[in-house]
Amino acid sequence: MNNITYGGEEPIAAFATAPGNSALTLIRCSGKGSIELASLVIASDKIKNTPGNTIVHGWIIDREQRIDEVLVSVFRAPKSYSGEDSIDICCHGGVAAGKAVMAALKKAGFRDALPGEFTFRAFMNGKLDLTRSESVMELVSAKTEAGRRHAVTRLSGSLQKEIDEIKQLLVQVLAGIEIYLDYSEDEISPAMEGAVINGENADEAAGKLPNNDTALLVLSRLKKLSASWQLERIYQEGITLVIAGKPNAGKSSLFNALLKEDRSIVAEIPGTTRDWIEAWVSIDGIPVRLVDTAGLRDTDNSVEKIGVERSLSLLQEADIVLYLIDGDAGSGGAEIIEEIAGIESRNGKNYLFIWNKHDVSPLPQPFPAAGCVPICVSAKTGEGLTELSAAVIKMIYKQAATDGQFEDITASLGTERQKNLVESACAALEEALALAEAGEPLDLAAPMLREAVNALGEITGEVSTADILEEMFGRFCVGK
Amino acid sequence: MNNITYGGEEPIAAFATAPGNSALTLIRCSGKGSIELASLVIASDKIKNTPGNTIVHGWIIDREQRIDEVLVSVFRAPKSYSGEDSIDICCHGGVAAGKAVMAALKKAGFRDALPGEFTFRAFMNGKLDLTRSESVMELVSAKTEAGRRHAVTRLSGSLQKEIDEIKQLLVQVLAGIEIYLDYSEDEISPAMEGAVINGENADEAAGKLPNNDTALLVLSRLKKLSASWQLERIYQEGITLVIAGKPNAGKSSLFNALLKEDRSIVAEIPGTTRDWIEAWVSIDGIPVRLVDTAGLRDTDNSVEKIGVERSLSLLQEADIVLYLIDGDAGSGGAEIIEEIAGIESRNGKNYLFIWNKHDVSPLPQPFPAAGCVPICVSAKTGEGLTELSAAVIKMIYKQAATDGQFEDITASLGTERQKNLVESACAALEEALALAEAGEPLDLAAPMLREAVNALGEITGEVSTADILEEMFGRFCVGK
Repeated sequence: MNNITYGGEEPIAAFATAPGNSALTLIRCSGKGSIELASLVIASDKIKNTPGNTIVHGWIIDREQRIDEVLVSVFRAPKSYSGEDSIDICCHGGVAAGKAVMAALKKAGFRDALPGEFTFRAFMNGKLDLTRSESVMELVSAKTEAGRRHAVTRLSGSLQKEIDEIKQLLVQVLAGIEIYLDYSEDEISPAMEGAVINGENADEAAGKLPNNDTALLVLSRLKKLSASWQLERIYQEGITLVIAGKPNAGKSSLFNALLKEDRSIVAEIPGTTRDWIEAWVSIDGIPVRLVDTAGLRDTDNSVEKIGVERSLSLLQEADIVLYLIDGDAGSGGAEIIEEIAGIESRNGKNYLFIWNKHDVSPLPQPFPAAGCVPICVSAKTGEGLTELSAAVIKMIYKQAATDGQFEDITASLGTERQKNLVESACAALEEALALAEAGEPLDLAAPMLREAVNALGEITGEVSTADILEEMFGRFCVGK
Repeated sequence: MNNITYGGEEPIAAFATAPGNSALTLIRCSGKGSIELASLVIASDKIKNTPGNTIVHGWIIDREQRIDEVLVSVFRAPKSYSGEDSIDICCHGGVAAGKAVMAALKKAGFRDALPGEFTFRAFMNGKLDLTRSESVMELVSAKTEAGRRHAVTRLSGSLQKEIDEIKQLLVQVLAGIEIYLDYSEDEISPAMEGAVINGENADEAAGKLPNNDTALLVLSRLKKLSASWQLERIYQEGITLVIAGKPNAGKSSLFNALLKEDRSIVAEIPGTTRDWIEAWVSIDGIPVRLVDTAGLRDTDNSVEKIGVERSLSLLQEADIVLYLIDGDAGSGGAEIIEEIAGIESRNGKNYLFIWNKHDVSPLPQPFPAAGCVPICVSAKTGEGLTELSAAVIKMIYKQAATDGQFEDITASLGTERQKNLVESACAALEEALALAEAGEPLDLAAPMLREAVNALGEITGEVSTADILEEMFGRFCVGK
């Protein structure tokens, strides 16, 4: 770690595009005086005097050496992403050009941007609230089209709007209490009464907060928001689906069949090489890490024992296990009952039993293991794969305690931070309601409501501390 | 392969930046009507009427759904990279956003650009000659700072200028012959004579071409250019340096020490995972693929035998082998003589013998293997590594038959294609000179000179066919 902290206006620079073989590389610069500073290394008279939102063609120079031919996009405060004077330098792709241009910029006086520093400055300059700032990172990390869609909704301000509305309602409730406390009961004029406690008179309000219905509406909207995080987190992080079963049950065939079916998002998500085979697929917009434990057999050989241990730890990690039963092996009946009973006794409820090779070995009727209804598939013919995906999705929804009616939710949460704050607000509001119900004086409920309002303000960033912001933006990628 | 060919003006689109985790992704669009077409998916009225070289902020929309918030750079023909109407769309990074934006563009009517198609169009629209077109690809692929520098020189037009100058001189020689052939000797007036054959009279010119000195100058400049390719190719492609030696000679330590010393370019060059350890380093600006054969031991174990076979094939592939002698092992003397003699009898001249662990085992004086002067290093202390690098560079220069005085060359070749054409021009010119020297009539030499002029024209693209161009641009990356 170094001593640079978020918060200044000094000129910063960072690569904004990914390294690798490409036609172009984009370097982003921002900060007070950044246009003048950049003009020191750009062989073009135009940069310094060019208006904002225009593009100038030129060469990056370093001690009279031509470094690269570039396009320079000039943005003038406040009309830029960060709200500061900024330039984007579009140089040639590959390894060397961007590196040389960056070196020239740093020699001129730019420093490396911290992670998320451009967005941090955008927030500080009032270009984005915190929910939209966070949605930028969610969007960049989105693994599937559905994930992108949810992030874009928040980037458009849907969550900010919902939080602002809820907060305003809560402030009404709080104002009602405060007016109530400021004036003794008999001082409230009939006109005022209507405005403040919605036509209820003080007696009717016993056991309730003033504007009690509003408080309950707020609570319900907060709970809906809080619940949205369950599924939203799954859209962001994905789930782990492990294919298990005895040797030759057809694990690899099923793995490949699912890959072929759903391999829409796979190749682009960088993964590390492992000793087992895995790939990301998108099932109904949910990123699924599909893991094949084939090859990790039960054996006495010490090398393969490591495989078995890994296999077991993968099963522990799995959100859902697809357990293949091999209809071809043995005589069915007793063995199958034993196999399934063994698994059910050891494991939780996250197993889906799959009857593979259905095209050649039909499911025995009645199925010998009572209460177990395997999903019949044929990895070879593709039969039953749609039903399998549907069963996976159903189990995901069940685990997330949602009916999956996600798209109807006008706003949903995008980060754990937001979810914790919504839950704090919920808890505080529930405490206030409970106090009122217990007939406690309203001056005990007021601080709870203030706490709830503050928590909501923290979500959008109206209320924030330097520590919170640094922690938050530090999770961003550099260049964002 | 599909049926689309280079040459049209239809709207094309391609990712211009590398896939991966990043803040931003750049999509490049070009072609007739591309601005109008893009405006169909951009929620901004400004795009259609915006002047060139300006940036518009907006949202990509698809059936009224917001896809991503983007910056759109508008370029109007002929002031763009391709010389056509073009737009660059800067969308959010990561997997999903760019994909969704690209899908919207394609739905609007853009087609995927072919490799190099933007640059192809730039060439067709007279924005770049072929040497500069090729330099774009060289620049993008440059592995080291030196490689970038060389490519940028060509991008600046240095090679185009040199070829044009040489061609002009050659045309002078050709014109001299043609005038000479058009007028019989006695028809040439004294005034004309001076202009045509540089003051030589026809008798003096016997055994020579008219303007013979110019022809010789051209030949020498062509040969210098041709020679430049040897080293230039090394700067582009790099060399393979294999570390070999008996077990425990310190191969891995030397590998790590060289990596630590020179690991400037390593991490960014994408490599494939192999069973042996390798990395790219930059030695004096030359990209060096450093391979450690440690762990590939001579053994009876069948798995390890595969290792040994790989090790041997690596040694075959190596441009230079660093062969480590273990001063610590055995009693020195006879064994070392035997080891070195064995290697020298089997292998070529591309071995550098290294005496490792010099800090604890000084080189025996005199060294038992006569004629062999090992380079003394200590991977542990870093002693001798500079000398080792220098010896490697010296051997590279020797192999490339150059003195490495590369930076003095005003222009150098960037591709095999250019080199083949320069050699064709050389050969044709040499034939013309030989014919003249043999006293053959000048009308036999003239076609040779015309051939040479054509070859030079092909380098810059003045002379070209669709086939040649497709072949050439097909090697580019998409988005360039």
